[in-house]
Amino acid sequence: MIQLADARRIIAAAEKKAEELGQPMNVAVVDEGGNLIAFERMANAWLGSIDIAQKKAWTSRAFDITTKDLGDNSQSGNQFFGIHASNNGKVMIFAGGIPLKKEGKVVGAIGVSGGSGVQDHSVAEAGAAAL
Amino acid sequence: MIQLADARRIIAAAEKKAEELGQPMNVAVVDEGGNLIAFERMANAWLGSIDIAQKKAWTSRAFDITTKDLGDNSQSGNQFFGIHASNNGKVMIFAGGIPLKKEGKVVGAIGVSGGSGVQDHSVAEAGAAAL
Amino acid sequence: MIQLADARRIIAAAEKKAEELGQPMNVAVVDEGGNLIAFERMANAWLGSIDIAQKKAWTSRAFDITTKDLGDNSQSGNQFFGIHASNNGKVMIFAGGIPLKKEGKVVGAIGVSGGSGVQDHSVAEAGAAAL
Amino acid sequence: MIQLADARRIIAAAEKKAEELGQPMNVAVVDEGGNLIAFERMANAWLGSIDIAQKKAWTSRAFDITTKDLGDNSQSGNQFFGIHASNNGKVMIFAGGIPLKKEGKVVGAIGVSGGSGVQDHSVAEAGAAAL
Repeated sequence: MIQLADARRIIAAAEKKAEELGQPMNVAVVDEGGNLIAFERMANAWLGSIDIAQKKAWTSRAFDITTKDLGDNSQSGNQFFGIHASNNGKVMIFAGGIPLKKEGKVVGAIGVSGGSGVQDHSVAEAGAAAL
Repeated sequence: MIQLADARRIIAAAEKKAEELGQPMNVAVVDEGGNLIAFERMANAWLGSIDIAQKKAWTSRAFDITTKDLGDNSQSGNQFFGIHASNNGKVMIFAGGIPLKKEGKVVGAIGVSGGSGVQDHSVAEAGAAAL
Repeated sequence: MIQLADARRIIAAAEKKAEELGQPMNVAVVDEGGNLIAFERMANAWLGSIDIAQKKAWTSRAFDITTKDLGDNSQSGNQFFGIHASNNGKVMIFAGGIPLKKEGKVVGAIGVSGGSGVQDHSVAEAGAAAL
Repeated sequence: MIQLADARRIIAAAEKKAEELGQPMNVAVVDEGGNLIAFERMANAWLGSIDIAQKKAWTSRAFDITTKDLGDNSQSGNQFFGIHASNNGKVMIFAGGIPLKKEGKVVGAIGVSGGSGVQDHSVAEAGAAAL
């Protein structure tokens, strides 16, 4: 189970990485039920990514997979193509969402949005490592 | 203009009040454009209020008014009855949202949800006072 | 038929009235098909009224009635109560929308939002008079 | 910060270009918070583009990028594929939206819709140049 204090620590670690990269980010953490615990938008981070960060976190918990890997399977011609039309638009299929695990069990997820796919994924990894 | 550091301080003050009341809350802060800066859900706070807290904050900024006062004007027979059907479901017309002001100018808003209307408004006031 | 030049003149007249009242407004004009021709938000007008002004205009054309009169019939207990839930949330039932007529025929509508119901209706009347 | 007078000048410049191209357009301008300031539909411009022009403007501000460039990154197989499913349908990923800058800072955006992607982008450029 993830506590608010965990979410804050995860977000702080993600933001530290974002600062190192010089790219401001939106960072969200959801719990085991996929429900938002905490969210922060860094100064000058993209407004359109407020929604995306939260949805990447939800998606990673909803399918217990990184959104990067889900995305690889969701391109035109691949097995999950079209999954982004499900769940009333909550499914994000590009990098930045990573499940959060405790003792091998998924207990939530982090979602990051504000830069390139490589940057978002890297910042999410830094956040996830703080749990 | 509200910074992330301001939003954190506002949320911390709101949570302190919520703890005093013994009622866990969802707390959101939006900026001048109505866009979310930060959000936190305290342990055991209502899941359905994740959305409501954010929308109360948006509503307070969108109409530069507390959602308590807006609600008073939006009951059947009053001048704004029906406003809750506007803005694609983003308008909340019950207590818990308060505009945030700097030098008399609205620069954002706080939205609180998780208890009675009186509790929500009281927690939002405590948060707003921290700006 | 309403032209873009008509819409501009209507909006200018509405804004002139809004300035006299000292209350900044959002003003929208729709054509015979209920489709938006032009919209302006005055400095410091409510953000939440961007949507409402457009929907008041649509509503007035959609039912060929002022939203003030429609509202009177749409309170709890009255004959149209519940109409605000129709048309995917596009129906506004409080003052500020007025049909635009040419030779007795409705050719469009103006929608105004940003103040009290009395102010909005008054500004919409000033706009409509310019056609 | 963009004022209503700026938005009018931007729209006028865009419409002048649209007239030169002989293609009527819908033109929208949003501010720093992504909120609509002004909109105009030229005579005989596509009705379906009323919505698209506004959403292109929002998208360009939300991601601080032209919708043309965002679109290039959002095709199947590219890093942002799926972004059009985010933000409740507000993200447009084809040409016509351009951020508006003052002293290197994004202060809003213009969105144009009514012709081919090349035409829309060209008209948006003409509008943006007027700021």
